Amino acid sequence: MVVPPLIERKRDGGSLRDDEWRGIIDAYANGSLPDYQMAALAMAVYFRGLDPDELSALTDSMLASGDRMDFSDENRPVIDKHSTGGVGDKTSLLLAPMLAACGAVVPMMSGRGLGHTGGTLDKLEAIPGFRTDLKLDRAVRQAREIGLVMLGQTAEIAPADRKLYALRDVTATVESIPLIAASIMSKKLAEGLDGLVLDVKHGSGAFLPESARALELARTMIGLGRTRGCPVVALVTAMDRPLGIACGNALEMREAIAGLSGDGPPDLMEVTMALGIEMLRLSGLAVNDGTARSMLERAIRSGDALERLAMMVAAQGGNADVATRPDMLPSADTIIDVNAVDGGTVTAVAPRPLGRVIVELGGGRRTVDDMVRPEVGLEVLVKPGQMVAAGDLIARVHARSAIDAERARSEVGAAITIGDDAPVVLPLIGWRVTHEHTTPWEG
Amino acid sequence: MVVPPLIERKRDGGSLRDDEWRGIIDAYANGSLPDYQMAALAMAVYFRGLDPDELSALTDSMLASGDRMDFSDENRPVIDKHSTGGVGDKTSLLLAPMLAACGAVVPMMSGRGLGHTGGTLDKLEAIPGFRTDLKLDRAVRQAREIGLVMLGQTAEIAPADRKLYALRDVTATVESIPLIAASIMSKKLAEGLDGLVLDVKHGSGAFLPESARALELARTMIGLGRTRGCPVVALVTAMDRPLGIACGNALEMREAIAGLSGDGPPDLMEVTMALGIEMLRLSGLAVNDGTARSMLERAIRSGDALERLAMMVAAQGGNADVATRPDMLPSADTIIDVNAVDGGTVTAVAPRPLGRVIVELGGGRRTVDDMVRPEVGLEVLVKPGQMVAAGDLIARVHARSAIDAERARSEVGAAITIGDDAPVVLPLIGWRVTHEHTTPWEG
Repeated sequence: MVVPPLIERKRDGGSLRDDEWRGIIDAYANGSLPDYQMAALAMAVYFRGLDPDELSALTDSMLASGDRMDFSDENRPVIDKHSTGGVGDKTSLLLAPMLAACGAVVPMMSGRGLGHTGGTLDKLEAIPGFRTDLKLDRAVRQAREIGLVMLGQTAEIAPADRKLYALRDVTATVESIPLIAASIMSKKLAEGLDGLVLDVKHGSGAFLPESARALELARTMIGLGRTRGCPVVALVTAMDRPLGIACGNALEMREAIAGLSGDGPPDLMEVTMALGIEMLRLSGLAVNDGTARSMLERAIRSGDALERLAMMVAAQGGNADVATRPDMLPSADTIIDVNAVDGGTVTAVAPRPLGRVIVELGGGRRTVDDMVRPEVGLEVLVKPGQMVAAGDLIARVHARSAIDAERARSEVGAAITIGDDAPVVLPLIGWRVTHEHTTPWEG
Repeated sequence: MVVPPLIERKRDGGSLRDDEWRGIIDAYANGSLPDYQMAALAMAVYFRGLDPDELSALTDSMLASGDRMDFSDENRPVIDKHSTGGVGDKTSLLLAPMLAACGAVVPMMSGRGLGHTGGTLDKLEAIPGFRTDLKLDRAVRQAREIGLVMLGQTAEIAPADRKLYALRDVTATVESIPLIAASIMSKKLAEGLDGLVLDVKHGSGAFLPESARALELARTMIGLGRTRGCPVVALVTAMDRPLGIACGNALEMREAIAGLSGDGPPDLMEVTMALGIEMLRLSGLAVNDGTARSMLERAIRSGDALERLAMMVAAQGGNADVATRPDMLPSADTIIDVNAVDGGTVTAVAPRPLGRVIVELGGGRRTVDDMVRPEVGLEVLVKPGQMVAAGDLIARVHARSAIDAERARSEVGAAITIGDDAPVVLPLIGWRVTHEHTTPWEG
């Protein structure tokens, strides 16, 4: 295969054929197409996009580069959700056990935190002993047995995507909607799903801050899933402030356990319920929203959802007792308060700088090889629009040392601004997007 | 240096600072910046361009990555020309000896053929024994002694450009005006010139076929040279048909010797004289066009120019007798005629397919590592607009075998089209471009 003319055609706004994308991805996966040609092609795609046929061909090629989970003789619906990520976004930790408790099978492959955003795998690994590096057949077996498994992308799943994702990360070609969509969907389609619910974030702390881009990504993934036999519904939700209170790995695990115990913060629970309702509707386990909501509420009230979490923790190497004794999670040596300097209205709780503070505390990654500290993070106790008095407690910093904590305190103070005017905030849930419609959320 | 944010800034239409470009080029030259990041950056530059400050910084950084020729205590003007390349374009082979004969010093670094275009080094190496891989100090010494040297880009000159050029060639990032301009000018500025004349080709067989793009490249290089103390003038000339008759390495060397002997084809001599006049004017050796033309004509008529060629051949390992006995050049085993099938007007003599025929005959390169056969090529005996009768001789194929020759014959027949209507052809010389003006050529 002679690659430069293919790069040139994409560069000049043309399209590559199915067999050309397949050839490119096969050659890249087996190492015969070098990184520098793929980097140039990825940048050309960044500028020129992909037409629907190309997007399908790229996704299918990455999917075909690896194995798939096989749930063909499973009677229960196999369902998953995916979030484009943000700060404090721990809905996956609640939804997988809740859906399993409601009778679905949830084979959830997740990612690690990078940049200012947290990652589900890092949060799970805050549980001592918890393993996320499962083999595919082992993961499928567990999902069948207890209804859920949460793991990292294995070497067996879409290896071409793994390699391309790592390359995009160091060549400024991450923020390409077709490349994002193909990457996510090649992994999710490998899970053998009956349905997928997307939580696409918008707002300043989102990967794609602009609503129009978030909607475009949602529609692109919905279209891809549809033509591949996997129904997809998306909610576009707010990431102009953190979701919930806890931000940081062990802190978020703790808040997820609180949520599964009926004691989660309202915004976290509202998004979790909305996504869970979509998952139950899409899986066919609930015929309308009211039934779905009741099922989810019962899963929490009965303790079934928390029990599923405990079963998963035990199955994946952790101590199941953590589900009822979250104090078993690691905690920081230094915990300090951040107080409001002035009184007034909270005008912004900026997730991007707060996410960066967590990285600086050791709770996130600068490079993929960085080790992550589970115990550090922030409790962000205020929301935009809230009134505070001077001296009010607005956040807590969980740090490894007093020096780290003090430095974080001033940065947290800067990220939480207090003023006179009521801020413009995004609605917690902005749109519901299906193949047919994009409708503003009405709760 | 953290590179992805720099790639991102360029991708998003921003500019990189001087020190950032210097850091990138230094790191690329020393191997600490990988090819894949440079490939992504080059593609971003393809789409976003470079502002004048960036272009200067990139050029200076590539220039600074290597050594320069030192002609600081040379009293004679040091002058060179550069062509963007085409089919049959052998003016360099005439101009270097002609200018040396007129009292200039010409330290000409040239390139090899790639794609459908020929390369000056390949044409020179058709002379048995001729060496183009000279060390820099040796080249400077020869230029001082005999007024000219023609060599390849040494490892000492702009090594960052060498590496980047090779990368661009395999990542579809060649056709970027700022990258082309920086590449050419970083090498030419390393020659320590007092002036540079550019022959920028346009038309179907040119690297940049559109006139507007050719003019943009000319103006970009003129601007770069000017701010770096090297006056530059450009002529935009036709490459919608081959220049001269001979196309192929030994054949072109032979035609250049004929030209230096007062017997060159009119179109080749017209472009050669126009470029030579610009070189003499720019060097200060002639005060007006008339004087310059007389000096060039005298250099040929007196035999001085041919004598300079002979001196260079001897100095660089060849037999100086070739200048008067071009039959010493290698010749093909099989030479066949191509005759017009129909009578009419020659409507096109398409240089791009003709160049590809030469590559297929073995006279050009598919990849940089290909060996080039000196003896093969074409004599293209007709020009667009010319009347021919059925059966008239329109070309000759010089090949290694009868099979090669027959295959080439049909392709040459297809590239030379004969019809009823007079074709639209580009004027041989289209524009003269200086820092101040772009003026249509009036001869």
